[in-house]
Amino acid sequence: MEKIHVVLGVDIGGTNTAFGLVNADGKCLLKDKISTQSHKPVEAFFERLFTQLRQMQRQTKSEFVIKGAGIGAPNANYYTGLMENPPNLGWGTVDISHHINQHIKVPVVITNDANAAALGELYFGAAQKMKHFLEITLGTGLGSGIVVNGEVLYGSNGSAGEMGHVIVVPDGRLCSCGRRGCLETYVSAEGIKKTVLEYLEASQTSSILHKKDSAEITSKMIADAANEGDALALKAFDFTGKVLGKAAADAAAYFSPEAFILFGGLAQAGELLLTPTRASFDRYVINSLKGKVKILPSGLKEDEAAILGAATLAWHEFFKTN
Amino acid sequence: MEKIHVVLGVDIGGTNTAFGLVNADGKCLLKDKISTQSHKPVEAFFERLFTQLRQMQRQTKSEFVIKGAGIGAPNANYYTGLMENPPNLGWGTVDISHHINQHIKVPVVITNDANAAALGELYFGAAQKMKHFLEITLGTGLGSGIVVNGEVLYGSNGSAGEMGHVIVVPDGRLCSCGRRGCLETYVSAEGIKKTVLEYLEASQTSSILHKKDSAEITSKMIADAANEGDALALKAFDFTGKVLGKAAADAAAYFSPEAFILFGGLAQAGELLLTPTRASFDRYVINSLKGKVKILPSGLKEDEAAILGAATLAWHEFFKTN
Repeated sequence: MEKIHVVLGVDIGGTNTAFGLVNADGKCLLKDKISTQSHKPVEAFFERLFTQLRQMQRQTKSEFVIKGAGIGAPNANYYTGLMENPPNLGWGTVDISHHINQHIKVPVVITNDANAAALGELYFGAAQKMKHFLEITLGTGLGSGIVVNGEVLYGSNGSAGEMGHVIVVPDGRLCSCGRRGCLETYVSAEGIKKTVLEYLEASQTSSILHKKDSAEITSKMIADAANEGDALALKAFDFTGKVLGKAAADAAAYFSPEAFILFGGLAQAGELLLTPTRASFDRYVINSLKGKVKILPSGLKEDEAAILGAATLAWHEFFKTN
Repeated sequence: MEKIHVVLGVDIGGTNTAFGLVNADGKCLLKDKISTQSHKPVEAFFERLFTQLRQMQRQTKSEFVIKGAGIGAPNANYYTGLMENPPNLGWGTVDISHHINQHIKVPVVITNDANAAALGELYFGAAQKMKHFLEITLGTGLGSGIVVNGEVLYGSNGSAGEMGHVIVVPDGRLCSCGRRGCLETYVSAEGIKKTVLEYLEASQTSSILHKKDSAEITSKMIADAANEGDALALKAFDFTGKVLGKAAADAAAYFSPEAFILFGGLAQAGELLLTPTRASFDRYVINSLKGKVKILPSGLKEDEAAILGAATLAWHEFFKTN
């Protein structure tokens, strides 16, 4: 029986955890998911994950050799290997490597989901062959994974790459971090929803979104409305892109990157977001970089990207040391 | 006769060029300067520099072995080795390595003065043993040299580290780069002078600076006035520090650095600038970094820092490859 070298990629999300076995070509050969929150204590969570993994392995004809494990998780620190008291999970601080090694004895690499996505993009997505780029993940919030010289920037304590928390509007919208005016309060699924609600409240412009219950409006609905030509929804995308493009121009002054790559739910709106972002970036960027920095959609498949990114963490360390 | 291993450090400024021989301990063993602008074409400039260097060498009893040359210069690109059409020098684009090698056959490394200062700080100044920090040079403008993982961040095209050109006030003061509201229009020797002139125009507050011809006011005069308790001058430093601390808070979200290090004329005001900068940084920085990032004065001697920084460029490459 052929032995296939793979790594285990695990993306621990607030609700669900996706995991799979990924080969060195970025192919996800097995995958599954489990509920994150329903497993306490954390030992039960890993027990369940490895039980399902072994079950899947038994059902295939291939023999997998697991070379390492990469984990993308909230508050996961690359340097310490600890998931530092992740919000809403009730696990406290978790030594991930320790728990993985109870089940399989392999090297374990962890970081947050945006850094993992950046590595996935570098090896298998839109950033292949790049050495300097920023991956921007647009989910409920805004995460960023910054690659310089082909390596993820972790900074002095593992918490670099928090582009979502640069302040773009002094005394602006209240952020979950406790401060005001952070980029992610404007540019994210929640951010564009807030923008739409403000527009709906302030204007009598007819909009199909007026008919929705405000609590139910999602960024997907806003994108759908914009695609149908809804003026209010289009205005919300223009505003969101303007804010993002301006922040990206500042980031470009620091990093002189080859590209910004937009990933995640809100980024699936495609040109609705990319076009105003590029226009705003061009307007605000320093002259020496005008026309030289791409703003691109992710090249990763949405449904596999999280596992792939996490797995790439492990492959990247493996390639560096072998 | 003892042979002493040194590198040649050259800091090409708009008016003067300082150069010297620096050993691996960061000691500047010989130094001199020549006028930059009065030498055209550029061949005449390098001819003069090496003539003076040979003259100095003849006057010492030591024998120097020059292992390399490091050059800090405006628009100097680390990757290409070209000084790209530096403003006001009338030299066009200069292949520095080519010109140096007409006189001495050694490896040549070039970059701008802020990146050179950052390396000097890393080896011999306030950033020793750090791996992640931002050097901020406060001269006529604001330059920055960013160190990540112990290496200067040059970015995709050599122009990374332009913190002076992040936009801090939309539609704010006109910048020499052609845009508006760049950080350096507020935080620099010119920036604080503009702030003082605005205050003088707008207010009747008594200030010893009212007595000066506005064209003659310098950042040194403003610091002297502030040190004598002049309220208007103190207010200008508070404002300058507030703007710098807020911009540094955003930079910290990207880089998670150990420190920001302030260098150059305006930074010599010391606590006048450091205190409000630290207060503003603490107010605006993301919670996970509160209390963890130092804001420090440079540890380099002002009169040798430029030569030392340039020389360190060459030593750094030498240490990496030997």
